[in-house]
Amino acid sequence: MIDYSNKICEACSVDAPKATQSEIEDFLKNHNEWYLATDVEFPQLRREFKFNDFSTAQKFTNIISDLAEEEGHHPSILLEYGKVTISWWSHKIQSLHVNDFILSSKTEELYNSKFQ
Amino acid sequence: MIDYSNKICEACSVDAPKATQSEIEDFLKNHNEWYLATDVEFPQLRREFKFNDFSTAQKFTNIISDLAEEEGHHPSILLEYGKVTISWWSHKIQSLHVNDFILSSKTEELYNSKFQ
Repeated sequence: MIDYSNKICEACSVDAPKATQSEIEDFLKNHNEWYLATDVEFPQLRREFKFNDFSTAQKFTNIISDLAEEEGHHPSILLEYGKVTISWWSHKIQSLHVNDFILSSKTEELYNSKFQ
Repeated sequence: MIDYSNKICEACSVDAPKATQSEIEDFLKNHNEWYLATDVEFPQLRREFKFNDFSTAQKFTNIISDLAEEEGHHPSILLEYGKVTISWWSHKIQSLHVNDFILSSKTEELYNSKFQ
């Protein structure tokens, strides 16, 4: 199992390598709450996070938004009452990149350290 | 044409009146950028707002989140790079209520006053 939460995002270009099926499966096996969303144009790593109210969900939205700005890699964030859904993928390669494993892991870590 | 931006949200109960088809059509006729989304469980008033980058989109997300908290009525907010999609509906009546016209108008007004 690779610990992606300690890794750093690298700039992603159009010819960057796509994550392999085996890398995706390995990530999902070790991150049970995440799943591969295929109801969108390109596959995404997605997870829903539950909260007691809207304002806590808003706080988490801002924490992940700030992470995205720091890393220069941006997810889609669906903010609803008591729920935030985060989806990571790499637009430039229209697929998943190792950066998406890294940011998903960091998202998970921020949730666990601040909201659990 | 009713100016909903000056109205105030009332508490919405399960037996509150649903918006009529004619009220919905009237609202949409006078708010061209909004549309009735039907790809969800209950119909929603939805609009996409474009921005130059992620951080401006995040700012708008927070402005609308703060509005939602003040009014005690919460939309879904999809935050992406350069785009925010806002959807208003009334969970309690599983439909649209006059509150959704009011909050959609206030959303529009906040966008126009701060980002246009």
